[in-house]
Amino acid sequence: MTRGFAVEEFRARVTRAQARMGNAGLGALLLTTEPDVRYFSGYLTRFWESPCRAWYLIVPAHGEPIAVIPAIGAALMGKTWINDIRTWPAPDPDDDGISLLAEALAEVGGPVGLPSHQGMALRMPLADLEAMKARSGLAFTDDRGIVAGLRAVKSQAETAKIAQACAIAGRAFDRVGEIAAPGVALSRVFRDFQRLLLEEGADWVPYLAGGAGPEGYADVISPASDAPLETGEVLMLDTGAVWDGYFCDYDRNFSIGAASDMQRAAHTRLIEATQAGFEAARPGARACDVWRAMADVVDGGEGAGRLGHGLGMQLTEGLSLTAKDQTVLEPGMVITLEPGVHLRPGKIMVHEEDIVITDGTAKPLSPMAGADLIVI
Amino acid sequence: MTRGFAVEEFRARVTRAQARMGNAGLGALLLTTEPDVRYFSGYLTRFWESPCRAWYLIVPAHGEPIAVIPAIGAALMGKTWINDIRTWPAPDPDDDGISLLAEALAEVGGPVGLPSHQGMALRMPLADLEAMKARSGLAFTDDRGIVAGLRAVKSQAETAKIAQACAIAGRAFDRVGEIAAPGVALSRVFRDFQRLLLEEGADWVPYLAGGAGPEGYADVISPASDAPLETGEVLMLDTGAVWDGYFCDYDRNFSIGAASDMQRAAHTRLIEATQAGFEAARPGARACDVWRAMADVVDGGEGAGRLGHGLGMQLTEGLSLTAKDQTVLEPGMVITLEPGVHLRPGKIMVHEEDIVITDGTAKPLSPMAGADLIVI
Repeated sequence: MTRGFAVEEFRARVTRAQARMGNAGLGALLLTTEPDVRYFSGYLTRFWESPCRAWYLIVPAHGEPIAVIPAIGAALMGKTWINDIRTWPAPDPDDDGISLLAEALAEVGGPVGLPSHQGMALRMPLADLEAMKARSGLAFTDDRGIVAGLRAVKSQAETAKIAQACAIAGRAFDRVGEIAAPGVALSRVFRDFQRLLLEEGADWVPYLAGGAGPEGYADVISPASDAPLETGEVLMLDTGAVWDGYFCDYDRNFSIGAASDMQRAAHTRLIEATQAGFEAARPGARACDVWRAMADVVDGGEGAGRLGHGLGMQLTEGLSLTAKDQTVLEPGMVITLEPGVHLRPGKIMVHEEDIVITDGTAKPLSPMAGADLIVI
Repeated sequence: MTRGFAVEEFRARVTRAQARMGNAGLGALLLTTEPDVRYFSGYLTRFWESPCRAWYLIVPAHGEPIAVIPAIGAALMGKTWINDIRTWPAPDPDDDGISLLAEALAEVGGPVGLPSHQGMALRMPLADLEAMKARSGLAFTDDRGIVAGLRAVKSQAETAKIAQACAIAGRAFDRVGEIAAPGVALSRVFRDFQRLLLEEGADWVPYLAGGAGPEGYADVISPASDAPLETGEVLMLDTGAVWDGYFCDYDRNFSIGAASDMQRAAHTRLIEATQAGFEAARPGARACDVWRAMADVVDGGEGAGRLGHGLGMQLTEGLSLTAKDQTVLEPGMVITLEPGVHLRPGKIMVHEEDIVITDGTAKPLSPMAGADLIVI
């Protein structure tokens, strides 16, 4: 599989953004976060892990994007399709690219739309935002949800990358028997599972969660403890592994040594709920409809929380499968189905798969698990 | 080594913050980013990789911090020393914790200080910030640099965690001969080096960069290509590996098969520059003084860029070793020394080590490399 995208793909993204900007009366979009900048530019680097440098991309209402970036990124940005690259020697305590950015925006004209809604952070210092606003003399507003809306609907090339990440994780999940056994510390399993993901082709492993216990686990966000696995426990591993900048996000449950009836029944119900969500995930259905289909199967009912979410350049992005989310599904959207059940108060089991919405029935991206709980 | 910190450590951090808030006339600090929230609470999870949920911590001018967080985090936050934990069922498209947060802030009183300066992002939607400001009726301002200032000076317990991360990377660097050889793709080396870091005890590997070439490499931020290593190239690997929430950040250069005179000379100069920076890194010296000591050795001179930076809960944080940074070094600050030299226009070699400032001579945290370039 080739890395990156054809230039035509980036041009199409910009064209779609500009059509929506025209309707919304915006003169420019100002992007500050890794996925937003990468979506329109193709700029891919793990250097974003360094928070001391700010990176800006301007998408004007007409014409090509303008990158306003630290000089250290000029060579790499020069390999993308972006032609207008303006740099400053960052970090500069006196003017960290702000006059350069304000000048570029003033050339383009406003109003300037900033992604401002749920899930969208501002990756620049607030003080610099205020200084830049004043300096540019332009009006600033939110982006009318344009960036999140575009990113939610994946191209075939994007979906193929997510499928690749899913396939890598699938091969790693098939090998969990090599690393998990009674007596092995959960922290060791976490470390080794990340190693398996890398061996199977992941570029990196930004996310790994999980848990273990005889009647499920307390939560799915805690770091792994050094407690050893014990026979009769159920182990869950949930990963966000990345291939060429795109995530998978799904999990698997494993019974250690032997599965209890309670674990087996819970797993069967999770798979039923996932299947119900899969059937409901058709174009025109709302996120809350898919949630409802799953919530009716798992024990939470009305009280069930988020049972899935959008997926792509970030581990979670866009819609949430909750009772309140009215987002209408469209072909090309990639989402996770993530039902959970309680085995007893405070103890849960969860299951997760990744799918893409099509014209008809959704298409699995992760290798959909069967009802039988795997015993290792 | 034990994970986490004693409760007294968090209390001391809050007490120091409150003293500075008193001087600055602030009623509260509002924290939104992973390291800032973790610094005062101890809340450690990789779940921050999911951008769809916002997390808030309030440090009041008097009394204990208040966590305002998604319900999914209640159990894990309950394991920290934080007692006042308020939750909402996130994500909620109607009110994503904003009324809860505004109410908590109103109880505490303003003015509310938000980290707003270089390196400090806002991890909440801008629209929610505006709504929350209006709802709380309080004055908002920047945090007067209080949070970054406190985080810059590490406790002994924090420094020990960074040293642990450095030791892990040191063992992995010692094994690079197992994974790098002529004919092996650079992308494969990147993947395998992350695996070595995990095997040697890293919790995870958020950052890996590097490059390879006969006369150095073009930059240090590009993703690895599939091009195979060739005899006579110099390979550089630079990692940010994490142990218990703290980073190391240093690199090593390796000559593949045989080192050229040019490579050897460049490496010797890099080590000389590092040593000059090490000697200059004493309490009372400014960041720009340490920069100057290294810039005088490497070929950049006045034109040399950033030659190191603060390090801790983030790969880079706080001060930058640049010509302009006037930050005065204090005992407890952990910084990297990162000189670079040009082998020819557009081709560089860089070297990096991690040190902690003490009352006298700095103390190495990474195993300081010798002048001889390693041949593998």
